[in-house]
Amino acid sequence: MNSEKLKIAVLGGTGNIGEGMVLRLALQNLMPEGVKNEVIIGSRSKETANEAAKKALSELENCGFDISRITITGSTNLEAVLVAEIIVLTISFDYVLPLLDEIRRALEGKIVITPVVPMVKEGNLFLYKPPSEGSAALAIQKRVPDSTKVVAAFHNVSSAKLKDIVKCESIYDALVCSDDAEAKKLIMELTRNMGCLKPLDGGPLKLASTIESLTPLLINIAKLNGLKNLGINIS
Amino acid sequence: MNSEKLKIAVLGGTGNIGEGMVLRLALQNLMPEGVKNEVIIGSRSKETANEAAKKALSELENCGFDISRITITGSTNLEAVLVAEIIVLTISFDYVLPLLDEIRRALEGKIVITPVVPMVKEGNLFLYKPPSEGSAALAIQKRVPDSTKVVAAFHNVSSAKLKDIVKCESIYDALVCSDDAEAKKLIMELTRNMGCLKPLDGGPLKLASTIESLTPLLINIAKLNGLKNLGINIS
Repeated sequence: MNSEKLKIAVLGGTGNIGEGMVLRLALQNLMPEGVKNEVIIGSRSKETANEAAKKALSELENCGFDISRITITGSTNLEAVLVAEIIVLTISFDYVLPLLDEIRRALEGKIVITPVVPMVKEGNLFLYKPPSEGSAALAIQKRVPDSTKVVAAFHNVSSAKLKDIVKCESIYDALVCSDDAEAKKLIMELTRNMGCLKPLDGGPLKLASTIESLTPLLINIAKLNGLKNLGINIS
Repeated sequence: MNSEKLKIAVLGGTGNIGEGMVLRLALQNLMPEGVKNEVIIGSRSKETANEAAKKALSELENCGFDISRITITGSTNLEAVLVAEIIVLTISFDYVLPLLDEIRRALEGKIVITPVVPMVKEGNLFLYKPPSEGSAALAIQKRVPDSTKVVAAFHNVSSAKLKDIVKCESIYDALVCSDDAEAKKLIMELTRNMGCLKPLDGGPLKLASTIESLTPLLINIAKLNGLKNLGINIS
C-alpha cells in the first residue's frame, strides 16, 4: 500500500448494507492497521448521496469517533466512479447491470467489488436465482472492461451487524473470490480491518455462485429457526 | 418415538462418511437421549458389509464403549433396505441413481436420507455440478416412490471429525431439508444426538442445492487457506 489514501466509491451507499460498509471503511482511518481511504457515497441523486454522507459522519461523531481524520462525501454514481480506485456495488441485482452500462468506461483498470445476490422471494423463503452466466459476479464481469478486476465479497454479512459499529462483537467469516490475486489480497486486507469480519480466500470468480447462494440460505435459516442477523463461521 | 429400535440402513457404510455415520448412530444406544437403533451396513457385497460391521464394533469396543447394547450388522444393499425404516445413502452421486432403481420398491413409505453431493474436480478445486433437477436431493426424490420421505442432511460434515468419536470436540451446524415435517423432525433428533452436530431446519427439499454446494465450498476453502476438515457454524 502506498501512503496516499485509497478512494472507495460505495454505490448505493444509501441502502442497508451500503450504510454499514461506509461506516466500517471510514473507521479504518482511525486504526493502526486499516487501509487509509476516502469514501465517496454514490447515488442516482447527488442530494441523496450528500445527505447519506452527512448522516454517516454525524453517526460516527455521535459514537465518539474523531471524524477530523475521516472523509466521506456524496456524489452521483458516475462522478463517484470517476474519482475512485475501488467501486463497491451495494445495489440490488435488478439495477446493477443497467448501471454498469452507464458507468462502464469509467471502470477501466479499477477494482469492482460485488456483494450482489440475485434472489427471489417464494412464499416465506428466498431462492437463489443466478443469471445465465452462473452468478451475479460472472454477469458483472461480462459487463465491465477487461482491465477491470472484479472481486466478489461481503455477501454473507448481516447489514444490521455491519452498521452496529459500537456493539457488534461477533466475528464472521467473509469469503472473497477473484481471478486477480492482487485485487483479492487488497480486498481481504480491507475486510480484515472492518472489525467484525475475518477474510477467507474463496478462490476464483467462478466459485462465487455458492457464496452468493449463502445469503438466501442465511435468511431462510433465520426465518425457519427463529434466529436473526445470521453470519457464517467456517472452522 | 416408540420403544422399539429404529432400523437404520447405511448404504455405502463402508466408505468414509458412512463409517462415521455408523459409529455415531450406534453410540446413540448408549446415551440417555439418543434414538435407539440397529444399524445395518449395506454394500454390494455382503462380505464387505459384514467386515465393516465387525470393524465398527471392534472400534467401539477398543474405545471402551459397552457394545452389548449396540447392534451393527452387514447386509447387501437390498436386504438392508428391506428391513430398515430409515435408509442413509452415503454413496457418490454417480452410483446413487442406478442403485435407487434396484431398490425402489423396497423404499415405499420409508425415510431416505441423502448426504449426496454432485461435484466435479476442476484443477485443484471442486465445483458443484447439480443434475437438471436442481440438486441431488431433487433427483433422488424423482426416483423414489411418492410415499418415500426424502431428507437431505449430513452434507457438510467432515468425515474425519465424524469418525473421531473420542476426540472430536467441535460442534458443527447440520442443515436438514425435507418436505415431510415428521421425517425432518426425526432426522433432526438423530442429528442432535450425534455428539458433534447441531441440527438446523434447512427448509423444504427445494432448498437442498445450496446446502449440497457447501461441501465443495468447504473443500475449496480448506485447500485455498491451508485449513482442513472444515465444518460450518451459523450464528
